[in-house]
Amino acid sequence: MTEKKIKAALYLLPVGLSETPPEETVPQINIEILRQLKWLVVENLRTARRWIKRFERDIDIDSIHFAELNEHTEPGEISEMLDPLRRGEAMGLMSEAGCPAVADPGAALVGLAQREGLKVVPLVGPSSILMSLMASGFNGQHFTFHGYLPVEDGERRRKLLGLERESQKTGATQIFIETPYRNNKMMQAITETLMDDTQVCVATSITDPESEDIRTKSVREWRKEGYDYGKKPTIFLLSAGMVHMNNEKKRRNRK
Amino acid sequence: MTEKKIKAALYLLPVGLSETPPEETVPQINIEILRQLKWLVVENLRTARRWIKRFERDIDIDSIHFAELNEHTEPGEISEMLDPLRRGEAMGLMSEAGCPAVADPGAALVGLAQREGLKVVPLVGPSSILMSLMASGFNGQHFTFHGYLPVEDGERRRKLLGLERESQKTGATQIFIETPYRNNKMMQAITETLMDDTQVCVATSITDPESEDIRTKSVREWRKEGYDYGKKPTIFLLSAGMVHMNNEKKRRNRK
Repeated sequence: MTEKKIKAALYLLPVGLSETPPEETVPQINIEILRQLKWLVVENLRTARRWIKRFERDIDIDSIHFAELNEHTEPGEISEMLDPLRRGEAMGLMSEAGCPAVADPGAALVGLAQREGLKVVPLVGPSSILMSLMASGFNGQHFTFHGYLPVEDGERRRKLLGLERESQKTGATQIFIETPYRNNKMMQAITETLMDDTQVCVATSITDPESEDIRTKSVREWRKEGYDYGKKPTIFLLSAGMVHMNNEKKRRNRK
Repeated sequence: MTEKKIKAALYLLPVGLSETPPEETVPQINIEILRQLKWLVVENLRTARRWIKRFERDIDIDSIHFAELNEHTEPGEISEMLDPLRRGEAMGLMSEAGCPAVADPGAALVGLAQREGLKVVPLVGPSSILMSLMASGFNGQHFTFHGYLPVEDGERRRKLLGLERESQKTGATQIFIETPYRNNKMMQAITETLMDDTQVCVATSITDPESEDIRTKSVREWRKEGYDYGKKPTIFLLSAGMVHMNNEKKRRNRK
């Protein structure tokens, strides 16, 4: 591959979701681009350095200027992070795992770049939301990602019932996440609250060749066959509606 | 990279969104896996062959068994496509562009594989939904993808107003697509219908290094500055709510 010259842009650099080697989770071009970046805004400095080293052993990491942007960053500190790009220098944004600026504080930096008309270039990488949706077999023509559901048990069950109703009504797939140590509690709430025939896909350790596991079953089956998603990164998808194949066909024919 | 041995699974193989070389849009591992697959279910035979040839010139394409799964396929024809996997042979699924089984008929095949407890493995690749969301600066903690909106002008405007209200109420980003030749009509409906301060991101030719363009502006600015998205593949994102940074902070601290 010929070396690409990078532009004055904010490159959004995905990071792997698992211990899988970078060349198995992102395209080669991401390495080419990273090699040329001297300014990086990262969610966590230690994780970012580690990923870069795995990504490209020969990189001169001390020549990179890092800024940290995470939940501890004050809104007033964000603007100056864009100064290199304002001067015409390329920059990168990296989250702790997966695609930056989706469900992480990096979105604020991207929003600011957009408001100032600065160029933003997203790169290809692993997204547990999209990959689990692909593998679920559920409706991908209409879906909602909800992030985290409420932690309190009663509130969470009410929310789950709301998502089930929404999916029944609209046919839309409902997607949400949980912190690993609460996965089994989530599965308990799901199996005790939702209807027998509601379909639930549980996707765990996505992109990890050893432990990746993505299964779609009815609530009845999950209840009967049991589960243990103890400490693994997991994403949940719910479908209580029919996938309206005929409508989809109609829409596609408009192309 | 060491050659990975593939498993008896349905591999979901993303395809590029633009004329960009495959090595710039998917990880190396996808090529390794494709090279070992002898059974492929594809949305369009001609497009699939062309992609494979660009992907890996040395591949013996005549040794691959192809089946076509698209809007013309009858539901009763789908099951037999899984026969190789039922016998323990690895298979692949490819759509015409982007990630398979998201907004294409391949979802039916994946759904069937899941119902039979067959292994499904999604691979990394470009998704215009996720990449535009990353680059929009909008809320990625809560978003809905709606596929196509209604074609009829009055219905479409009502739908747009509904999405705006939904985003105001929940803070969720609303994402939708249109067929390229109707993009400007969509932009007209957006600029004539929505509120001045509603933010709209228009992402066009994603991953195409020459013509990719992703811009977030208020409806007021779009109206004033004009637009022309004539024949380019485009995705639209709308945000009328505040991104609830404090809530997000709270949620993230639960990790």
